[in-house]
Amino acid sequence: MNIILLSGGSGKRLWPLSSETRSKQFLKVLRSPEGTHESMIQRVWRQIHKAIPDAHMIISTTDSQKETIRKQLGVQVDIALEPERRDTFPAIALAAVFLAMERGCGMDETVIVMPVDAYAEDGYFQTLLKMDRAVQSDAADMVLMGIRPTYPSSKYGYIVPEPVQTSGLMRVASFSEKPEAKRAIELLDMGAFWNGGVFAFKMRYIMEIISRYIVPQGYQQLRENYGRLRKISFDYEIVERCRSIAMVPYYGMWKDLGTWNTLTDVMHDNNAGNVISGEGCSNTHIVNELDIPIIALGVCNTVVAAGPDGILISDKLASTQLKSYVEKIDQRPMYEERQWGNYKVLNYMRYQNGNHSLTKHLMILAGENLEYQMHKNRDEIWSIVDGRGDLLIDGHLRNVRCGDVAYITRGTLHSIRAITDIHLIEVQIGDELSEDDVENLAWDW
Amino acid sequence: MNIILLSGGSGKRLWPLSSETRSKQFLKVLRSPEGTHESMIQRVWRQIHKAIPDAHMIISTTDSQKETIRKQLGVQVDIALEPERRDTFPAIALAAVFLAMERGCGMDETVIVMPVDAYAEDGYFQTLLKMDRAVQSDAADMVLMGIRPTYPSSKYGYIVPEPVQTSGLMRVASFSEKPEAKRAIELLDMGAFWNGGVFAFKMRYIMEIISRYIVPQGYQQLRENYGRLRKISFDYEIVERCRSIAMVPYYGMWKDLGTWNTLTDVMHDNNAGNVISGEGCSNTHIVNELDIPIIALGVCNTVVAAGPDGILISDKLASTQLKSYVEKIDQRPMYEERQWGNYKVLNYMRYQNGNHSLTKHLMILAGENLEYQMHKNRDEIWSIVDGRGDLLIDGHLRNVRCGDVAYITRGTLHSIRAITDIHLIEVQIGDELSEDDVENLAWDW
Repeated sequence: MNIILLSGGSGKRLWPLSSETRSKQFLKVLRSPEGTHESMIQRVWRQIHKAIPDAHMIISTTDSQKETIRKQLGVQVDIALEPERRDTFPAIALAAVFLAMERGCGMDETVIVMPVDAYAEDGYFQTLLKMDRAVQSDAADMVLMGIRPTYPSSKYGYIVPEPVQTSGLMRVASFSEKPEAKRAIELLDMGAFWNGGVFAFKMRYIMEIISRYIVPQGYQQLRENYGRLRKISFDYEIVERCRSIAMVPYYGMWKDLGTWNTLTDVMHDNNAGNVISGEGCSNTHIVNELDIPIIALGVCNTVVAAGPDGILISDKLASTQLKSYVEKIDQRPMYEERQWGNYKVLNYMRYQNGNHSLTKHLMILAGENLEYQMHKNRDEIWSIVDGRGDLLIDGHLRNVRCGDVAYITRGTLHSIRAITDIHLIEVQIGDELSEDDVENLAWDW
Repeated sequence: MNIILLSGGSGKRLWPLSSETRSKQFLKVLRSPEGTHESMIQRVWRQIHKAIPDAHMIISTTDSQKETIRKQLGVQVDIALEPERRDTFPAIALAAVFLAMERGCGMDETVIVMPVDAYAEDGYFQTLLKMDRAVQSDAADMVLMGIRPTYPSSKYGYIVPEPVQTSGLMRVASFSEKPEAKRAIELLDMGAFWNGGVFAFKMRYIMEIISRYIVPQGYQQLRENYGRLRKISFDYEIVERCRSIAMVPYYGMWKDLGTWNTLTDVMHDNNAGNVISGEGCSNTHIVNELDIPIIALGVCNTVVAAGPDGILISDKLASTQLKSYVEKIDQRPMYEERQWGNYKVLNYMRYQNGNHSLTKHLMILAGENLEYQMHKNRDEIWSIVDGRGDLLIDGHLRNVRCGDVAYITRGTLHSIRAITDIHLIEVQIGDELSEDDVENLAWDW
């Protein structure tokens, strides 16, 4: 069985701890079986391995999440990387072609597409096996998972099965997308299920659809011609046009951890980080990723989240409104995880004369290196405050360690490779400070 | 008339925006008559000038507040600086000796002692004139201000006047310090007043008491022998022993802005700084001194205060409990105002091998300079990110400007003087990073 896990989302609903590079699926706030913290993607990855040990998994994502995924799941994980964001159909098509062309997945094998951030019990993953059997027995071209609704939500899509069926595999009569409250109640009365975005089909089925746009000759070829795949969702392009659809019901626990309100329900701890929670606090969750302490006194039914990008204080129910407020914020990311480590913006100043300065703390993991790069509009001063490594300036390597300082003028190529973990303070000075002011060159370390 | 304004307080009750160097009286959150922000000390200073234009004022304080006071009231303000913290009697004695010996205040002149953070309407300051007249007419050795209570508080001291008196000047029958709730109600029934800590007496009166410990021959002489003054409060040493006490009542508005609950009542704005206050927020005050945004959703009856030292989220009534929680925090100050400007700690790291690093942003005002200093246990890297000035290293001066970097090894004397406002990033590296690791030398700029 082959599983394509979709990892997307800009993470505005869980601001400030999620962002473009750190979507909600990467937040390590859940409890693992060993009692440690794990993220949603780690939980799903672990649960699939347990339910289906021989499943071959691939993550479909964009460049901004690649490094975080490798850090959380290991560097050997297969990733189908969208060259640009289009929609779910092209993304799934690219992952399917990777499986077929690069991993030798046969045309008769089952491909399952599912979100990477489903929060469910093990039965959910057992249901994938039932879907595989339905596909392999040619019960339908497309098999969906139906999730038993717990309330008449207007947030989800519904699958309406044909009446009078056995409970194992159901024919689908119709779909209903995000119904109004009254219609949602009717759908529940009709025995409808939530559509949790889990689809199973044979490789042949999707390859034939892809071939209408471009005959796939390889993964790289498809990446280079990615724009030829229609910018459309998998639902519109494939599911709605499919004439042979069945549904396997799942009756167990399933939660959409898309907002602070639902996420705090399943969090490992009430408080995380430097938090002093005083008397009178109740039903309150506080996550503090800053170095400074938070004191909470007499705070009820509230979620507090503080990180380098900002601070949220919200009534739990009101937290579902967060997205529209986050969209008003126009601020560069203050913290990013990269494959080589991470950086945090410590200070940004704009002066009257048009001069700017920006100070960062960088942590580079032992064995990793920054890209070999230069900037047009800024000088950088690197103060190495811990560790040792090799500094590369315009092709010249030199050994550096804690206490060394490098002055990198604009136009100078530079990089650093960590021998032990390196911490450095980077001071940028220039008329224009932008993450886009960078030219990368290859360097063979 | 001479007024000694007592400026003390470690400011734990208004954490995180107040601290050792930034007590509550310096928070610029009140509205001035011009519609701008002013602090409590600025408000009191302005109100005294208005009510008593010829009053001579002196601030009694400690070294840690000196620079902030000069910045808020002007460099020409008289300050009596305690060489060490003892108690209110020695502090007031030192200020009185300054007035007598350095400013020629006569033995028959009135001295008024009052707190610097009283929040009251103009009538309060008019009452000082009545106290002066009572002292000058020798109505009593010691004249106190009685504040009409608005509720039976257990937080304050009470002055019980003798019964059946005219309303202008009252004989004092007894005092009652922080009574229990039941007793406070009785006190109100008896017509008692709150003791707001405002005392008036003739200079001769306090000089005679000081002379029991040391015959004052000058301000510097008393500072050098400060330890000979008994470590005791002004109330115990003087007021309680005085046999001739009168009280002038004040019936107007007076507030103790000692907690967030009371301070937010009189604040200029509901939100200050980078704050997005969403629907459903009510009776909530948010003060954000950080660079990152705060989003508040559905938050009621709450005060939020965020600054470099930490973040408070508190139900307004519960905020009175803050002090005991703040005392649990053991953290170096992250932001301090100095006469030369200010600094903010951006980052502090402790590494496995015992190595530490600390990064600061310093802002040095044009014309000001840092103390000429050296450190034993740390190297410092200064990157000048804006402005220009003179860098002094081991007696050698050189002109520096934006983009220049200085590497200051341990044991090297160094300072900088700003020609225009200077912003610099200081990276400290060492085995031990402490504000106490500093030796200052004199330098004649």
